[in-house]
Amino acid sequence: MTVITDHTHDLDARSWVLGSENHPDFPIQNLPFAIFSSGGSKKRAGVAIGDMILDLEAAADHMAADARKIGELGNRPNLNALFACGSKAMTTLRHAIFELLTDGGKQAAIEPLLYRASECELYLPFDIRDYTDFYTGIHHATNVGKLFRPDNPLLPNYKYVPIGYHGRASSVRVSGSEVTRPKGQTKAPDADEPSVGPTKRLDYELEMAVWVGKGNALGEPIDIADAKNHIAGIGILNDWSARDLQAWEYQPLGPFLAKSFHSTVSPWIVTLDALAPFRVAQDARPEGDPQPLDYLFDDDDQATGALDVRMEVHLSTAKMRENGEVPHCLSTGPMTAMYWTVAQLITHHSSNGCDLNPGDLLGTGTLTGDTPDSVGSLLEITNGGKEPLTLPNGETRTFLENGDEIVMTAYAQKDGAARIGFGECRGRIAAGPMG
Amino acid sequence: MTVITDHTHDLDARSWVLGSENHPDFPIQNLPFAIFSSGGSKKRAGVAIGDMILDLEAAADHMAADARKIGELGNRPNLNALFACGSKAMTTLRHAIFELLTDGGKQAAIEPLLYRASECELYLPFDIRDYTDFYTGIHHATNVGKLFRPDNPLLPNYKYVPIGYHGRASSVRVSGSEVTRPKGQTKAPDADEPSVGPTKRLDYELEMAVWVGKGNALGEPIDIADAKNHIAGIGILNDWSARDLQAWEYQPLGPFLAKSFHSTVSPWIVTLDALAPFRVAQDARPEGDPQPLDYLFDDDDQATGALDVRMEVHLSTAKMRENGEVPHCLSTGPMTAMYWTVAQLITHHSSNGCDLNPGDLLGTGTLTGDTPDSVGSLLEITNGGKEPLTLPNGETRTFLENGDEIVMTAYAQKDGAARIGFGECRGRIAAGPMG
Repeated sequence: MTVITDHTHDLDARSWVLGSENHPDFPIQNLPFAIFSSGGSKKRAGVAIGDMILDLEAAADHMAADARKIGELGNRPNLNALFACGSKAMTTLRHAIFELLTDGGKQAAIEPLLYRASECELYLPFDIRDYTDFYTGIHHATNVGKLFRPDNPLLPNYKYVPIGYHGRASSVRVSGSEVTRPKGQTKAPDADEPSVGPTKRLDYELEMAVWVGKGNALGEPIDIADAKNHIAGIGILNDWSARDLQAWEYQPLGPFLAKSFHSTVSPWIVTLDALAPFRVAQDARPEGDPQPLDYLFDDDDQATGALDVRMEVHLSTAKMRENGEVPHCLSTGPMTAMYWTVAQLITHHSSNGCDLNPGDLLGTGTLTGDTPDSVGSLLEITNGGKEPLTLPNGETRTFLENGDEIVMTAYAQKDGAARIGFGECRGRIAAGPMG
Repeated sequence: MTVITDHTHDLDARSWVLGSENHPDFPIQNLPFAIFSSGGSKKRAGVAIGDMILDLEAAADHMAADARKIGELGNRPNLNALFACGSKAMTTLRHAIFELLTDGGKQAAIEPLLYRASECELYLPFDIRDYTDFYTGIHHATNVGKLFRPDNPLLPNYKYVPIGYHGRASSVRVSGSEVTRPKGQTKAPDADEPSVGPTKRLDYELEMAVWVGKGNALGEPIDIADAKNHIAGIGILNDWSARDLQAWEYQPLGPFLAKSFHSTVSPWIVTLDALAPFRVAQDARPEGDPQPLDYLFDDDDQATGALDVRMEVHLSTAKMRENGEVPHCLSTGPMTAMYWTVAQLITHHSSNGCDLNPGDLLGTGTLTGDTPDSVGSLLEITNGGKEPLTLPNGETRTFLENGDEIVMTAYAQKDGAARIGFGECRGRIAAGPMG
């Protein structure tokens, strides 16, 4: 098992930034990237350290030439150009940032380039050209398959093809953006005709976001052994879904308006470098399942291509917030529920020659674990809306109501390594034009 | 029936540009837009007149102030900012261009701003943010449905929901770009496992492209009465498809790699203004079919929302070109085969609040007519590959071979109006890495 870690992962590494030690999300071992602004300043790249954000472009002036010319790309309003430099360049930059933030001799020069995160605005990290949503959560695929096709939950292609579809890029928004309840066509099973109204089955989907770094040219597939070098990093994705619209519209060409009204991503891009200590063997593939076809198979990827990340979903209703109650944890689940690795997604996507570009968003699909408390959507929790969920304050939910807020978080944690957090992916439901 | 035409449609209108009179595609009544360059100059907007291209930005200097400030947006390398001005502004600009090209007094000033089209390069007209492909060809949907689902060709939602799915924006290329044969997973019905190789069932799909002009904000649907004002114009689209990949991968989330390797668009954007004389009643909806739901219904759109455009598909093989044979016409068909109007596509797409943006590409879906000679794909012509097509030189085809070139054209023509052409949408198949 060849997981490469270096001194930037050392548990005893210390930054001079106050409060960064043992920070639950952003210790010195993480160093994720986002687009931020402070006090009305321009949008630019920042790096999280504890409760602070480092202005990357400004910090680049203090780096050696090779890192400086990469860091200077932090002056853009998105991370596309920065991550287009490729994973090797980004590793160089990571090391330079690590040195600045751990070398006490640099403190006087760098401290003025730090901004209190609580006083900053965060934005969509990339200019998203294309958004693809995969369907790698095999437990989710099985659960949902049972609801839509009781006799045929998991189709014959599932264990060979990393199933995915194109999503809508224009309606992706950053954490904190309000989500307007969509309206659309739905048809009750006993109705003669469909009718139009606000969705009655608004759901979240707990996914991880895989962001593309360096792209590929049209007609030039990405080899599985090289795939991870095309990944900028990982975030959290909530793929909001209107289940009643979906059931009526999705055949034969897949989900469309049931998803395209809004998707929410977390602002922080956690690099594969930061996650290196949490690379584990891909074992979501049960004994006896077919081996991946050659173009998707790589020894190293099988041995270390999965990411040991835990995800959580929390709900707060308007009433809970009024009463000062803490959000209720709906589920916690493992990213290792992915039937395919992030490298396999990149390789499969480009295998027909399709060109991926910096800032492309790949969703993992809803990640549900194999236990009842690790279920990634209300559709599954409530058994298709048939078994309402009772919250601690006595409220019940089958699907989301206006005023409900979903907060997703994620982290990687184990003995001997610093905890790596992803920040949060938050969205609150607002009434639409029809309610 | 309220089709608004004006003096720019007059059959006896004459431009001083030599050869533009009775030009089969680009008479003075058309004035479509494209992105061009000449002799290595910068990419910018041009307007077709006969065999010439007018440099829009340069011509803007000769317009009155209201048109000039719109025309100056022709200095960009794509048409997004220009058409974002909206249909009213573009009508103003059309009239200004018409005046410059018909007023003999302007000839001396404007003639130097014309470039011979045969000496220019044409580019992708828009920076495409999102590409959505619809499925409005009811005869195509029925024919294909029979092949994939013999017992259930047209699903119950078809006559209520304008079925569509998100396509891949990154791999759209302009006419003339080589198409690399994709490889991918396929599974023979009698095989135990899928295998990987070049597609053996490479097909074209004859579609029209609907380009979005002015966009809408997230959460703000576009009313059906306003929808046409959000359309920049119409072009031709070849949605290349690998049928064997498609059959294996498409369930349950729809087409993905079977389509995302390449799509080809024609470079010229023919405005709805130019097509005004060819607006006709929407009559693809057979007697007895349900009326469109309220949000998709508009009296004016029903009366004048269809476009009387004819499309043609031509094939030339490598052997045909060697022997100097003319391309063989595979089919001609009507755009009126659309079950939904272009306005209904815009309104449905935004009905859930999804934001459309300038330069978004909407495909109509394959347009097959109701006669055997108006069939929009080889899949249909050869009955799923079972009945090979024999070409005039004796060659046969079930699907496309390397070296085959598909040229699609389209035009609108009727007594009393000038013929409005769309130029061409051309692509030739090249071997991929595996053949």
